[in-house]
Amino acid sequence: MKYCSDCAAPISKAIPDGDNRERFVCSQCDTVFYQNPKIVAGTIPVWQGKVLLCRRAIEPRRGYWTLPAGFMENGESTEQAAIRETWEEACAEVSLGPLFSMITVPHIDQVHLFFLAQMTDGRFSAGEESLEVALFEPQEIPWQQLAFPTVGQTLERYFAGNEHSSSDSATHVFDILPRQALKL
Amino acid sequence: MKYCSDCAAPISKAIPDGDNRERFVCSQCDTVFYQNPKIVAGTIPVWQGKVLLCRRAIEPRRGYWTLPAGFMENGESTEQAAIRETWEEACAEVSLGPLFSMITVPHIDQVHLFFLAQMTDGRFSAGEESLEVALFEPQEIPWQQLAFPTVGQTLERYFAGNEHSSSDSATHVFDILPRQALKL
Repeated sequence: MKYCSDCAAPISKAIPDGDNRERFVCSQCDTVFYQNPKIVAGTIPVWQGKVLLCRRAIEPRRGYWTLPAGFMENGESTEQAAIRETWEEACAEVSLGPLFSMITVPHIDQVHLFFLAQMTDGRFSAGEESLEVALFEPQEIPWQQLAFPTVGQTLERYFAGNEHSSSDSATHVFDILPRQALKL
Repeated sequence: MKYCSDCAAPISKAIPDGDNRERFVCSQCDTVFYQNPKIVAGTIPVWQGKVLLCRRAIEPRRGYWTLPAGFMENGESTEQAAIRETWEEACAEVSLGPLFSMITVPHIDQVHLFFLAQMTDGRFSAGEESLEVALFEPQEIPWQQLAFPTVGQTLERYFAGNEHSSSDSATHVFDILPRQALKL
């Protein structure tokens, strides 16, 4: 960020009054520009015990497999974002279940949400951002070819089964540390 | 958004190639500026059956009561944000429990997260953004003086008790529609 998007004057870094962090601040009109994490919302689409994965047609991680997911847009809910992304990437209609995992990826300032989802009719095809889309039996998951650590961690927990009863929460909330993210 | 923050040229609205929504796009360097929802993270701090609330010292909703919560920052996790906001607004140290509610507020492009939290020593005081902080018995909650609908809905569900067993998920994921938001 170099210029103010309100008045085009140069931007500097400063700690605003009452704040305790450096922000982008306009040198002329004093507007503060905050930078905050973005939400990526997606689903675990299930059909007859199989899970639907998409092979990415775009960077990052082109050619690798992912659960359908993408950036949440203004004006929609987390659930709407998850359903929309599943439709756009896998042309699959889903009935949304509960939130299954919420994973912060702090080194890229993202929070990834995955909802359980039942495919409504078993139909799917590759959307514009996918090279191919396929249903996988648990033993067929291409673990070494997954696009993102959050997809692997979500699928691991999903296939680990219904251990929810031992927990206070059915939602798996955890962070992916940079160390873990580098493993893939 | 009027000017490009990279090159200071005027911004226009356009649908970029491969996209299906209008975005802010630089007329000169073609940079696309996406706008996405922000996360507000907070806690339901509990001490001996009472819940800690803060009376806001700042706008919006100055003078009204809220659960401690605030904008998640880049580089931190949702849990860290919730713990930090509880410390900043209520000077209370908490041990974080599971995610309790995730509520989209689409008309202001926010997603509110509230974690269950045990206060570690029962100590608290008003932080810079609070006029006062107090522990409330369930029957003492100032329902008519709450700052935000998401705080009311989270507290309602919290005091409705442990009805989780009938649900697939312990996390309450729901949207606040503009109609509901206008009720307060």
